[in-house]
Amino acid sequence: MGIRLGENQYGKAEVRLVHVNRDTDVHRIKDVNVTSQLRGDLETVHTLGDNTTCLPTDTQKNTVYAKAREWGGVGAIEDFALRLARHFVGEHDYVDGARQEIHEYAWDRITTPDGPHDHAFSRRGGETRTTVVTKDAEGEWVVSGLEGLTVLKSTGSEFHGYPKTRYTTLQETTDRILATDVSARWRYVGVDHDYDAVYASVRALMLEAFANTHSLALQQSLYEMGRSVLKSHPEIAEVRFSMPNKHHFLVDLSPFGLDNPNEVFFAADRPYGKIEATVERDDAPAPGNAWKTVPGFL
Amino acid sequence: MGIRLGENQYGKAEVRLVHVNRDTDVHRIKDVNVTSQLRGDLETVHTLGDNTTCLPTDTQKNTVYAKAREWGGVGAIEDFALRLARHFVGEHDYVDGARQEIHEYAWDRITTPDGPHDHAFSRRGGETRTTVVTKDAEGEWVVSGLEGLTVLKSTGSEFHGYPKTRYTTLQETTDRILATDVSARWRYVGVDHDYDAVYASVRALMLEAFANTHSLALQQSLYEMGRSVLKSHPEIAEVRFSMPNKHHFLVDLSPFGLDNPNEVFFAADRPYGKIEATVERDDAPAPGNAWKTVPGFL
Amino acid sequence: MGIRLGENQYGKAEVRLVHVNRDTDVHRIKDVNVTSQLRGDLETVHTLGDNTTCLPTDTQKNTVYAKAREWGGVGAIEDFALRLARHFVGEHDYVDGARQEIHEYAWDRITTPDGPHDHAFSRRGGETRTTVVTKDAEGEWVVSGLEGLTVLKSTGSEFHGYPKTRYTTLQETTDRILATDVSARWRYVGVDHDYDAVYASVRALMLEAFANTHSLALQQSLYEMGRSVLKSHPEIAEVRFSMPNKHHFLVDLSPFGLDNPNEVFFAADRPYGKIEATVERDDAPAPGNAWKTVPGFL
Amino acid sequence: MGIRLGENQYGKAEVRLVHVNRDTDVHRIKDVNVTSQLRGDLETVHTLGDNTTCLPTDTQKNTVYAKAREWGGVGAIEDFALRLARHFVGEHDYVDGARQEIHEYAWDRITTPDGPHDHAFSRRGGETRTTVVTKDAEGEWVVSGLEGLTVLKSTGSEFHGYPKTRYTTLQETTDRILATDVSARWRYVGVDHDYDAVYASVRALMLEAFANTHSLALQQSLYEMGRSVLKSHPEIAEVRFSMPNKHHFLVDLSPFGLDNPNEVFFAADRPYGKIEATVERDDAPAPGNAWKTVPGFL
Repeated sequence: MGIRLGENQYGKAEVRLVHVNRDTDVHRIKDVNVTSQLRGDLETVHTLGDNTTCLPTDTQKNTVYAKAREWGGVGAIEDFALRLARHFVGEHDYVDGARQEIHEYAWDRITTPDGPHDHAFSRRGGETRTTVVTKDAEGEWVVSGLEGLTVLKSTGSEFHGYPKTRYTTLQETTDRILATDVSARWRYVGVDHDYDAVYASVRALMLEAFANTHSLALQQSLYEMGRSVLKSHPEIAEVRFSMPNKHHFLVDLSPFGLDNPNEVFFAADRPYGKIEATVERDDAPAPGNAWKTVPGFL
Repeated sequence: MGIRLGENQYGKAEVRLVHVNRDTDVHRIKDVNVTSQLRGDLETVHTLGDNTTCLPTDTQKNTVYAKAREWGGVGAIEDFALRLARHFVGEHDYVDGARQEIHEYAWDRITTPDGPHDHAFSRRGGETRTTVVTKDAEGEWVVSGLEGLTVLKSTGSEFHGYPKTRYTTLQETTDRILATDVSARWRYVGVDHDYDAVYASVRALMLEAFANTHSLALQQSLYEMGRSVLKSHPEIAEVRFSMPNKHHFLVDLSPFGLDNPNEVFFAADRPYGKIEATVERDDAPAPGNAWKTVPGFL
Repeated sequence: MGIRLGENQYGKAEVRLVHVNRDTDVHRIKDVNVTSQLRGDLETVHTLGDNTTCLPTDTQKNTVYAKAREWGGVGAIEDFALRLARHFVGEHDYVDGARQEIHEYAWDRITTPDGPHDHAFSRRGGETRTTVVTKDAEGEWVVSGLEGLTVLKSTGSEFHGYPKTRYTTLQETTDRILATDVSARWRYVGVDHDYDAVYASVRALMLEAFANTHSLALQQSLYEMGRSVLKSHPEIAEVRFSMPNKHHFLVDLSPFGLDNPNEVFFAADRPYGKIEATVERDDAPAPGNAWKTVPGFL
Repeated sequence: MGIRLGENQYGKAEVRLVHVNRDTDVHRIKDVNVTSQLRGDLETVHTLGDNTTCLPTDTQKNTVYAKAREWGGVGAIEDFALRLARHFVGEHDYVDGARQEIHEYAWDRITTPDGPHDHAFSRRGGETRTTVVTKDAEGEWVVSGLEGLTVLKSTGSEFHGYPKTRYTTLQETTDRILATDVSARWRYVGVDHDYDAVYASVRALMLEAFANTHSLALQQSLYEMGRSVLKSHPEIAEVRFSMPNKHHFLVDLSPFGLDNPNEVFFAADRPYGKIEATVERDDAPAPGNAWKTVPGFL
């Protein structure tokens, strides 16, 4: 019997970078959180503490900041992640793979009575845009997504027809609140895309499908959201969702002599439903290592 | 020497209430978090466990839900809190004071190609609207506010002229990023106001003052924000702010042969500056018990 | 009508300091989070951005680190906070008050088969020890406390005899789970104490009183905890508590043909009870400004 | 081109269950957080909203509570998860797979001057014990772990010998603080084990290896921790770690005329190193689907 090192990666997590584009007096800002991880011949780092092949995580951090300057900004987070991955793998012969994950936080220009302000911004809140780029000897993959897009329908949602067992107490309903935090990731085919445009479109399509689907199950809403994206975006091979069913329970007001015609709800925290599924194109190319180091659903 | 009960209050915290107004097919939703606390003759509850005068926190919770139905909705959170306070104090002779705190989360109607949707919403993110209503034998007070309004200026902020000591290392600057999360609370004179309209106006005035103030210190921006509100709103006696200075440090790229003309910043977490101040009207009526149970700055 | 600056303070929050005492090979570590805030003649900082009297928050941070070295370590957090307050007020004529808040995180020495390790530690988890020292022209005050001490009794807790109203649905019980997170702050009389010893004693007394009180209301447990502390500690004038009633609801298993003799519980998140009270000595000296900038309950 | 449903699972997340064993007056408590998810023929749930094969998440929750009573308690979380998985798959022909994840929070008996208390407890803090059990047509797998075990060495850690590039600024060191939060998961061979005993042993071995390894890289400490576990536990096939390098930076006190002989440190939040690796037995059986739905590292 022997003991050995298995798969591994290392790097610097959550490098908080804000870039200000000052080309004109109308500034533009980019607010991102970069996690850089590398792979390579790291056996003896682990077994002997020999760091000969270990590009320090501190250097990875420095590189993120330096490249934001060298490249004149960040651009689409997918493009920045791809360039970083290529830099790390291309520049160091002891690095044979890179995983670059970036989260982006959106800001809005503050509007005053004089119009949009040149250099004052308020953070938008709402969802975070994400990407995970994986690069190794076999190829390059881009998986993008969003997290924390919270949506709610106050009607147009039913739940019934499910199996009843001896542990069933849930009542069927033809009118309930449906609420969820959308977390989605989509895998691109290829790596050359107008990522900003696709992101805006995917987000809008998901919102539209959520709003317009008369829902018989959160799963159905999820599926329609994925289907809508795939129909419009041939450059996307699959979409993976993780969506909590954020329960809004109708409060029983009858002890107080009151009816409650779907007006007063208790928004519960835990437990919550947890729905995870992939919607995919049946002729999509194989995922390769696209999902290899993407944590989470499935 | 004796030991005795001092000041006290008790209740139910974070009653999560979502109300759906279904008067028309175009639903409206109100998403609030209510914390109800009462005061009264509670000596023997503490010393003997005699609950004769202790309206259960569970009953307070039920009341919040029932009143949302009885009153046909929530309305402005200040009005709902006032009505709850009056109900609790007026209905039970063993209750002589109430503190009702409400937080409100904003939602936007989802827009689809067919226009704004009737009953589908996305959570706005960004700031939370708050109120704390205090009612006791001496009167009624309304303190409203907002939390989590994150703003940033990419220029138009300086910091210099401060005292230098043997522990000073900070460099003076005439151009830095200024960023903060605005937490503010303002005290109303009287209790009859169009709270929704005032909220919208105060928020806009704060954003405008933050954007338009060429800042020599975060304190100055804070003061201008308060001053702007007081100038336009005679019904507000004072504004209290707690604002972190969220440091964005210019990254030193010189080791890499690069300059950094205020473009690449590290957004730091901790430590952060913490600026707290009150801006007040010099002829304002005394605060009474308005701030008595409002936690926090000053 | 005029607008003016009201009360204010500013400083550096959450200066994370870890001090290693290496006097012997058996290291000792101290892990604290310091928030330093100052008061003084800060009118023109706010109104004009004139920083002449504004000791930068960065300098306050540097001072915290430098003093940990100059003074050979941190010692009891109350003593460190007092010394910092005296330094800031004593050294700068434009500073006339200081508020120093420190949180301390506890670590245990890792025990191996060879015994306690010289220089390896694991973080204890559980409660955080706190202090807020206020110093101004009127005096010095020390308020210490703990946060996040989570305790539970699986029996020995009842709740009944409360008033019933039309909004009452709660059932009376003679046996329930009682659980809470203890947050407590106690005000010292004077400033010369063996703070470490008092802390250990207060913590033990609170746990003992919680455990041994047959509780008819969480308020009663709270009161006994405070009373027990005051009885043993003449140097403490009052104790203020904020304690959630963390509900553990008995699950109704009857739909499944099962009884539930107080065995299976649902631990709820929100809403929760919120019990706040002061237990005080009736001959205690007046609090002065001890609580002036201590946020929270009452 | 067609669009189809890919992999999916659904269930109820974070079912908070506290079980009190009252067999004797000396109560024992078990505090767990159960996430139950099922797989099966769920195509039409997604495409049509046909819930015929969708055992509601509410029923899954009820089952967790009912089984805790039927089975006389929870026992080792691995055993409880296995029994739940077998129940769900065995009882319903439309369910062909189950994933049961359980987190456990530890409590200590409160000790009073009269000794350990019968029914009063304080939450231990520190790490959470975890398990993920996967069951499908191919088999059963148990992956257990811990999260949030925070450890620190105040010496006995070096870092040097790494490659220098044009983006390197890090200085080599032969004495630094090494601190991390250990997150580990280990895969069992087979499903019949004394899980409680193994957990206690694995935890102790990890702590010992962390303490006793003179570390030249965090990777080396990680590897020694895994190796120590595998050497003593033939029933474990592999251990996967995700360990941040929680940087403690030596504060430069030289501007203040002070040296800093590894005494005063700034504990940083972000960015942090992120080290992930698997230590495995070279003759271990293949993992099958053990890791299929375990989020995270590798």
